[in-house]
Amino acid sequence: MMRPLNEEKVFKDPVHNYIHVQDTTIWRLINTAEFQRLRRIRQLGTSYFTFHGAEHSRFSHSLGVYEITRQIISLFERNQYADWPKEEKLLTLCAALLHDLGHGPFSHSIEEAFDMNHEDWTCRIILGDTEIHNILCEVDPELPAKVASVIAKTYDKPIVVNLVSSPLDADRMDYLLRDAYYTGVNYGTIDIDRIIRMLRPHHGRIVVKESGMHAVEDYLMSRYQMYWQVYFHPVTRSSEMVLRLIFKRAKELYHNGFQFEFMVKPIISLFKDQLNVEQYLKLDEALLQTAFMQWTTENDPILSQLCERFMHRRLYKYVELEPQDMDRIDEIREAFIQAGLDPDYDLVVDFPSDLPYDIFHPGDEVSQKQILLLDRQERLQEISEVSDIVRSISGLHRGKVHLYFPEEKLNIALSKFSPSITHIFKDY
Amino acid sequence: MMRPLNEEKVFKDPVHNYIHVQDTTIWRLINTAEFQRLRRIRQLGTSYFTFHGAEHSRFSHSLGVYEITRQIISLFERNQYADWPKEEKLLTLCAALLHDLGHGPFSHSIEEAFDMNHEDWTCRIILGDTEIHNILCEVDPELPAKVASVIAKTYDKPIVVNLVSSPLDADRMDYLLRDAYYTGVNYGTIDIDRIIRMLRPHHGRIVVKESGMHAVEDYLMSRYQMYWQVYFHPVTRSSEMVLRLIFKRAKELYHNGFQFEFMVKPIISLFKDQLNVEQYLKLDEALLQTAFMQWTTENDPILSQLCERFMHRRLYKYVELEPQDMDRIDEIREAFIQAGLDPDYDLVVDFPSDLPYDIFHPGDEVSQKQILLLDRQERLQEISEVSDIVRSISGLHRGKVHLYFPEEKLNIALSKFSPSITHIFKDY
Amino acid sequence: MMRPLNEEKVFKDPVHNYIHVQDTTIWRLINTAEFQRLRRIRQLGTSYFTFHGAEHSRFSHSLGVYEITRQIISLFERNQYADWPKEEKLLTLCAALLHDLGHGPFSHSIEEAFDMNHEDWTCRIILGDTEIHNILCEVDPELPAKVASVIAKTYDKPIVVNLVSSPLDADRMDYLLRDAYYTGVNYGTIDIDRIIRMLRPHHGRIVVKESGMHAVEDYLMSRYQMYWQVYFHPVTRSSEMVLRLIFKRAKELYHNGFQFEFMVKPIISLFKDQLNVEQYLKLDEALLQTAFMQWTTENDPILSQLCERFMHRRLYKYVELEPQDMDRIDEIREAFIQAGLDPDYDLVVDFPSDLPYDIFHPGDEVSQKQILLLDRQERLQEISEVSDIVRSISGLHRGKVHLYFPEEKLNIALSKFSPSITHIFKDY
Amino acid sequence: MMRPLNEEKVFKDPVHNYIHVQDTTIWRLINTAEFQRLRRIRQLGTSYFTFHGAEHSRFSHSLGVYEITRQIISLFERNQYADWPKEEKLLTLCAALLHDLGHGPFSHSIEEAFDMNHEDWTCRIILGDTEIHNILCEVDPELPAKVASVIAKTYDKPIVVNLVSSPLDADRMDYLLRDAYYTGVNYGTIDIDRIIRMLRPHHGRIVVKESGMHAVEDYLMSRYQMYWQVYFHPVTRSSEMVLRLIFKRAKELYHNGFQFEFMVKPIISLFKDQLNVEQYLKLDEALLQTAFMQWTTENDPILSQLCERFMHRRLYKYVELEPQDMDRIDEIREAFIQAGLDPDYDLVVDFPSDLPYDIFHPGDEVSQKQILLLDRQERLQEISEVSDIVRSISGLHRGKVHLYFPEEKLNIALSKFSPSITHIFKDY
Repeated sequence: MMRPLNEEKVFKDPVHNYIHVQDTTIWRLINTAEFQRLRRIRQLGTSYFTFHGAEHSRFSHSLGVYEITRQIISLFERNQYADWPKEEKLLTLCAALLHDLGHGPFSHSIEEAFDMNHEDWTCRIILGDTEIHNILCEVDPELPAKVASVIAKTYDKPIVVNLVSSPLDADRMDYLLRDAYYTGVNYGTIDIDRIIRMLRPHHGRIVVKESGMHAVEDYLMSRYQMYWQVYFHPVTRSSEMVLRLIFKRAKELYHNGFQFEFMVKPIISLFKDQLNVEQYLKLDEALLQTAFMQWTTENDPILSQLCERFMHRRLYKYVELEPQDMDRIDEIREAFIQAGLDPDYDLVVDFPSDLPYDIFHPGDEVSQKQILLLDRQERLQEISEVSDIVRSISGLHRGKVHLYFPEEKLNIALSKFSPSITHIFKDY
Repeated sequence: MMRPLNEEKVFKDPVHNYIHVQDTTIWRLINTAEFQRLRRIRQLGTSYFTFHGAEHSRFSHSLGVYEITRQIISLFERNQYADWPKEEKLLTLCAALLHDLGHGPFSHSIEEAFDMNHEDWTCRIILGDTEIHNILCEVDPELPAKVASVIAKTYDKPIVVNLVSSPLDADRMDYLLRDAYYTGVNYGTIDIDRIIRMLRPHHGRIVVKESGMHAVEDYLMSRYQMYWQVYFHPVTRSSEMVLRLIFKRAKELYHNGFQFEFMVKPIISLFKDQLNVEQYLKLDEALLQTAFMQWTTENDPILSQLCERFMHRRLYKYVELEPQDMDRIDEIREAFIQAGLDPDYDLVVDFPSDLPYDIFHPGDEVSQKQILLLDRQERLQEISEVSDIVRSISGLHRGKVHLYFPEEKLNIALSKFSPSITHIFKDY
Repeated sequence: MMRPLNEEKVFKDPVHNYIHVQDTTIWRLINTAEFQRLRRIRQLGTSYFTFHGAEHSRFSHSLGVYEITRQIISLFERNQYADWPKEEKLLTLCAALLHDLGHGPFSHSIEEAFDMNHEDWTCRIILGDTEIHNILCEVDPELPAKVASVIAKTYDKPIVVNLVSSPLDADRMDYLLRDAYYTGVNYGTIDIDRIIRMLRPHHGRIVVKESGMHAVEDYLMSRYQMYWQVYFHPVTRSSEMVLRLIFKRAKELYHNGFQFEFMVKPIISLFKDQLNVEQYLKLDEALLQTAFMQWTTENDPILSQLCERFMHRRLYKYVELEPQDMDRIDEIREAFIQAGLDPDYDLVVDFPSDLPYDIFHPGDEVSQKQILLLDRQERLQEISEVSDIVRSISGLHRGKVHLYFPEEKLNIALSKFSPSITHIFKDY
Repeated sequence: MMRPLNEEKVFKDPVHNYIHVQDTTIWRLINTAEFQRLRRIRQLGTSYFTFHGAEHSRFSHSLGVYEITRQIISLFERNQYADWPKEEKLLTLCAALLHDLGHGPFSHSIEEAFDMNHEDWTCRIILGDTEIHNILCEVDPELPAKVASVIAKTYDKPIVVNLVSSPLDADRMDYLLRDAYYTGVNYGTIDIDRIIRMLRPHHGRIVVKESGMHAVEDYLMSRYQMYWQVYFHPVTRSSEMVLRLIFKRAKELYHNGFQFEFMVKPIISLFKDQLNVEQYLKLDEALLQTAFMQWTTENDPILSQLCERFMHRRLYKYVELEPQDMDRIDEIREAFIQAGLDPDYDLVVDFPSDLPYDIFHPGDEVSQKQILLLDRQERLQEISEVSDIVRSISGLHRGKVHLYFPEEKLNIALSKFSPSITHIFKDY
């Protein structure tokens, strides 16, 4: 099914140096309107508020995931591993390239606010009336459905699903390296060449040669650090809170018949929960930023101020709740109300540990979420049975409750709080 | 005038590792709405079409310029160089931080299309009714005017102007390093620590210790390569051509009374040449991308197709004109017309060498555009008198004429061209 | 006491970019014969057998430790921290620069084989009739003794001792970065700028601001990985085993009156335990390598073969002992004897965990071996009380017993072993 | 002829990340005593005196050259280029790996002092009674002679010679990257992936696709800078001068019947010009450093002082001769004699431009020394015809005359010089 290009195409990439495209179908997929749209979706959502370099796009990341997958398959082919089904190459590469296609603008926040799911949208785009669907169909009318099933993890060859989505997949390897590169933090420097060289197709899944254990340990530690230093950084969380409040307020206003000075069709459909693929594809971060900028002058003070906060980076401040105050949230909320603040918009409680993050937990599930090591005797062992480090970190739970609030309003309210409530906010 | 922060603030930066803010005024300037807007203006305009990692913003670059300037002044102070006027520190840092404040979206293209100038806008914002103006005034009512005059190169202490704007200034040093980092090319790796250490304030300007000559040679070579490999890359130029055609068409339509489905106030003011500071500040790249995306469905095929090209990266193709064909442009244009193409929108001739790029030309001007070396006997020599390499490259002229055109239309037209015209397009 | 150089001197350094020397005394110390000798002592001993790039010297490392210390003190001075005794600057810098002065060739092995201690030798060189001693005396006749007391950890200002020697000292920071750089492994990439910025002099010791905790976690993890991936690598251990056997055999032969074809005075003194400072300073790795190369043709097969192994990298092979075989070492040794092998030279048992490595163990000691965090309320907490990660790794014990042996002899012996002994060696 | 290893072996390498060994013969060659000896020959000779990190060995470099060659051939095979003779793979890899095998200690200096040639020694070792010879013979009795002929550039398939030795060969690419890495200078950062991808076998030689021109320009500029910043650094040159004077004096003394306290056979043979392969292989840098250290106490003040200078880095100082003084060297020498200095040992005149360095000079030779570009029409052009930059630098001549001398003796002599001679030395 592969159709080699006359001449290999390359993209210059700071993370992988070059991204190599050798197949016509891959090249054509990259050049579709739907894939080019990923340039307008940031890989790390609002993290640029914390790490000003983090403006990189899901377009770059998707190319990176494709490239790592290409290198893995190329190594499998070179070594002629019997357990790798060669005929699945193009399907695997397409799934790797397209796995993030359905991400919306500021993905995590919009999904939570509007109860959407980017994997569903990925499948809808691949199966809908789109350029991508047409290109896949030209290769094989079954291909769109196959790609969608790999992404939905229902494809009947589990090794393909495992390669595209597992705790050691190309997705995670690329985002660690890429997010570290663009934020400038140095926790994400993993030895990807070594990890790739240690992967083995084995009885329907991808396992790791035992001698690669230390590289995997280092990778899991990097991921752990990136989660807490970057992905869950409280400033980033604060910007996400403000973003969700904007969504909440605007939707509320819309359903209450508020007349927006600025409104465009995809946002209306979003509010009405009637988005179709065509409108979804127009819903990019440029559009949301434009709407928010325009809304800074809307005639609703809550909305306009929230939009000002987001556009000009006047985020909510925060305190971390001490363990002994964990069960006083209702009391705090009550104090806010008593002080004349709006409990819906002036106080947000955040438990990042509630998020479905994917730090590895041994024992959670037998199947795809475990990393298995293959020893010289061809025995498999789950990594936390062998690695002290993995066992040590895998049970760790670092989530802390943060309270987010608008600084100016809190300052006014402070005088009305009881001392024990004031105490909670003393160090923000 | 400096007002030290209680505690130094830092920004994590991939290029300089950390950006250190030690003064309250600098910290407050960074947090203004006007400075935060620079997050929505890309440093390299449309270069992301060629180098997908090049999404970095003028916000990051401005912080970087500030940081390099801070390091230079700090070194001057540590060594107690007599020729450095210590009292100018805050002014210099403010000018370094704010020098790019007035850049518009897709700056080079919009400036050319609407005859604007970002330095004028920088000064208008600094002098207008803005948060930045107020913060500067609080330090000293004269400060806004002084900062503006440094940026306009009219400030009466030339050494301050020279530090902020010269062939070896912090601006150029930061963009070489930063653009190389985000594009991933490796031409921009200059030894900035050594260059900084070699700088000396000397009789009203910044000169370089002679032993820093090789580092400066390397810096000028890097700049030369970056111009031709990155800044003038034909794919980037193509996207700028499409962009200018969009501006041209939309303005044309607007003045002809065309009813846009999507239109917002700042764009109207842009078309009417009536932008004020407030509207200018809303004119960011998110707004233009949103307008272009909406215009893909406007009822004018020229505009909508140009917008599709820009949004989905269907850029114009190009050929490089051989020297013997340089004077045949009129003939080519005529052939396009004969073949039924639109010479205004289907053919763009580009001489990037016409652009006011600033590769160093010795002898051009005596004053601020030369790099002077200071030898052990305290004599000054212009660098190209001493360096073979600088002399060799400074006269080089590499600009080539490119023709840009829509591939599909050209393909149809080709059959109607004479063989000698066809020949010109044979290899695009 | 500082005597600034007319002009700062710099060394180009791959790890710190430049090493800055600003004081005459430091400059003169670097140029002594005793300090230049460190160029001929490798930082990582025999690790070059495992990581071919690891040829870097203790000279480079010592400059690096000096540079980090200089940066820390410079930051303390800039921030005018009250708890830092400014008058100790030169002493601290000298102690940082000279702390490794007494390292012998292949330091760890020679110390073990001849019961020497490099810290003692450092003090002997500083206090003896040496160029270093004279330069220090010229500044202050008490200075040599003070420097020696800092290195011996007996100096009466504990903060100086703590800065030069603690779990977060400049020594460890430099060697992690440097060893990672020269070996090419990427475990050692710590955020040294951030760690340095977080250090605070506090009541007679150096503590870490609480917000630097994550950077310290990352540093401890890096150290942990470097120990097991690099410093205790079994191939490196094997080369150290061969080295010790050479020392053992040569000393044995010497005391038995063997006539060496090649012998030089410092080695005789080493064997007789009569080394003086002058001879010790001639005992570098070039001398030992030369002796070993010459000894490849000595008339003792054990010695000549061991030297051949070391010079031509024909190291002993190894097996890792499974837990169930841990108490069978005597039995194994007996099998070797039965099979006609020499238990003294053909079998080495190695427990790297027995080595005095310094991975942080909370609770071990209260004083200098703990890392203390300083929170906003100026309270101190030992890091493992706060950090889940540190607590997790600090109890880990990874040492495993390895058996080392000459491959050819073992192969012959294998047929004479009982099956259960053969089984132990099946996978070497 | 290739005999794949059961499992690929890798070396961790800071420059190429991993070096991959896939063939049994290559693996066995690396493990010979002769190849392991290259660990004791520094890649950059005495450059460690200038750049303290430059302790890397020819062993590392040889592995790097092998790895680049492997990557190039692997790309040729993957693309099935017709002009590449596949059957030459093992020969080419062996020649790449072994091309530096005959380098002696402090190669450039010893070759000049004793009129030796490392390529001759490489061939003598390959053809002599050595482990390497035996391993090559086992593959094919003709192989040693073939490898030697590739290294001697007489092999009858010029494309193999061209791949191993040309202005764009793996040797030069590796040393630029490696020397830059270990010295820490950043001039050597070339885009090797791109250069490799642009190489094409074409009619018996290796050419470069035209679109790789900029990468080649950058590579040539890097080489130019490395020559002048690193390879010809005057401090390094000074140490080479001292080294040659040691060789000169010691040989002189030997032939005059001087009784050396320390002497070993390979050095005697060197002095008598009777080195055989066996002794040559013992002549490594450890041996020379040991001899020099021992000779610091020989009973000849000239020799002992020169050895002290070399061992303790008390190098000769230098001045650069101004153009107007270029023809006054005899006069200067005369002044030295008049002042009682020894013109043979107290004054060295150095023209580094006289050295056979290999900066590219277009037109010099038609055959192997030119870089040819292959355009879309399969036409070849010599690069300097197309590239302004290459044309600009290729004629440059930067060599300057330096005078080297012992500082203390010159200082005494200065008072006896005429003012015009004194003037020449005023700034050293």
